[in-house]
Amino acid sequence: MTGTSDLSDSSNPIQLGAQLYAGKAKILYATSDPNVLLAYYKDDATAFNAQKRGTIANKGEVNCAIATNLFKYLESKGIATHLIEQVTTDRQTIKAVKILPLEVVVRNIAAGSLVKRTGLELGTKLNQAIVEFYYKKDELGDPLFTDAHIALLELATPEQLQQLRKLGLEVNQHLQAFFNQCDLTLVDFKLEFGLDQQGNILLADEISPDTCRLWDQRTDNPSDRVLDKDRFRQDLGNVAAAYQEVMTRIQAAFAN
Amino acid sequence: MTGTSDLSDSSNPIQLGAQLYAGKAKILYATSDPNVLLAYYKDDATAFNAQKRGTIANKGEVNCAIATNLFKYLESKGIATHLIEQVTTDRQTIKAVKILPLEVVVRNIAAGSLVKRTGLELGTKLNQAIVEFYYKKDELGDPLFTDAHIALLELATPEQLQQLRKLGLEVNQHLQAFFNQCDLTLVDFKLEFGLDQQGNILLADEISPDTCRLWDQRTDNPSDRVLDKDRFRQDLGNVAAAYQEVMTRIQAAFAN
Ligand SMILES: Nc1ncnc2c1ncn2[C@@H]1O[C@H](COP(=O)(O)OP(=O)(O)OP(=O)(O)O)[C@@H](O)[C@H]1O
Ligand SMILES: Nc1ncnc2c1ncn2[C@@H]1O[C@H](COP(=O)(O)OP(=O)(O)OP(=O)(O)O)[C@@H](O)[C@H]1O
Ligand SMILES: [Mg+2]
Ligand SMILES: [Mg+2]
Repeated sequence: MTGTSDLSDSSNPIQLGAQLYAGKAKILYATSDPNVLLAYYKDDATAFNAQKRGTIANKGEVNCAIATNLFKYLESKGIATHLIEQVTTDRQTIKAVKILPLEVVVRNIAAGSLVKRTGLELGTKLNQAIVEFYYKKDELGDPLFTDAHIALLELATPEQLQQLRKLGLEVNQHLQAFFNQCDLTLVDFKLEFGLDQQGNILLADEISPDTCRLWDQRTDNPSDRVLDKDRFRQDLGNVAAAYQEVMTRIQAAFAN
Repeated sequence: MTGTSDLSDSSNPIQLGAQLYAGKAKILYATSDPNVLLAYYKDDATAFNAQKRGTIANKGEVNCAIATNLFKYLESKGIATHLIEQVTTDRQTIKAVKILPLEVVVRNIAAGSLVKRTGLELGTKLNQAIVEFYYKKDELGDPLFTDAHIALLELATPEQLQQLRKLGLEVNQHLQAFFNQCDLTLVDFKLEFGLDQQGNILLADEISPDTCRLWDQRTDNPSDRVLDKDRFRQDLGNVAAAYQEVMTRIQAAFAN
């Protein structure tokens, strides 16, 4: 990875502290402010619970740019997020939160594990978006959880769960509208939420082609249309170019 | 299998019709009355989505007797079931229903797939019983479904789903009380429900050591205590004797 001390220059007074978490796609650092973390976006990519590993050229910078734009967009729509600001091409300052150990997945079109689970055909449009919760626990393979499992392990209160469902569907509405402007279809995506010191639920982690399925509306070809991590998962080629294309379209839309 | 024509004798006027369904544990036959089916209980046993196969001596007769007693008990508690009557040692007449393609699983203690899914230790007592729904679809491996998946595939209406949850928990209350009288702990169990011509929800299929986890309260030894199909799944030995023991205790309790 590149150096990390260049953030404490005069124009940017953040002091980098200890590495708090080395994830598969990002590294989190402490800063001089205990309420502020620095997220460094890496080029590393993993899939199938890290059984498949690789890198995607420029993914760190591309995903950092995409996530920054989308979180700013969502903030403008009234969604509270952890984003403070993008500080370099591949780094953001974010509010430190206690991550709820749930992956909140919202789906508009059948793909991935929903196809496997239900037997629905890939590409089936759902009559209404559905929200799923997966337990964030690599050792268990991030299993699907029902409300009963969440209550059993006390991962969230029933009230928090209802809030997460509502927030997931709201984010979906906003993102669908935004991606449509980019000629991109939002098939499904994964969100993470965390609690700040006051117990407020903030949208955290990232939104990027690593965490969304995005289909290009400019083609019907089932493999050309894929502009997300499925290109990496399924070895479809042109992975970096797809990420780049998503960034370019998002930046153009965001500039409007 | 044994002959099937012996049911149409003078004392028992049921005419056996076509074989309607050859299941893994039972065969269903039509009768002269379109609203009545005959369920024949086999000695065949399968586990792990039929990857493991075998037979358990006398299982057909034992499970038929157990299911008959438990369904009669539940009827006496006000639960509507498909049972008409036991007509031979291994056969029951039942009301024909349209089976809802959901396995309704109720759990009091962590075991089986709940341990795998949540990481809870085997034997952890749940603070309250939980109800899970699995899509009855062998090709898909009977996957866990949330309410959203059930709505998506229109497997049950939201009202039916609430009724299934309520019925599952009621059956659990009654069965726990009954099994306690037998010095048996009801760890978890699977129910199936169906709709009759009028759209009423009836408890259907069977309740037996094939479909329940039952632990012997007379021993603490973790493998001795198992008196259900886990003896077959895990090759614990004395499978037939365990089923027999459950029947003996249930018949004694039922006689009271
Ligand atoms: N605002 C935040 N405060 C604290 N932790 C955060 C915040 N935003 C994201 N995180 C966490 O930081 C980590 C980001 O790293 P990365 O995305 O590489 O993780 P990962 O390899 O996907 O592993 P994980 O399975 O933990 O998500 C995640 O664990 C994520 O939950
Ligand atoms: N009253 C009923 N009316 C109609 N079908 C019933 C009734 N009760 C049970 N069934 C169905 O009859 C079959 C019983 O056979 P068995 O238990 O051997 O099935 P199985 O091999 O477990 O397969 P399945 O996966 O279909 O349950 C099941 O499919 C069950 O759903
Ligand atoms: Mg992550
Ligand atoms: Mg069955």
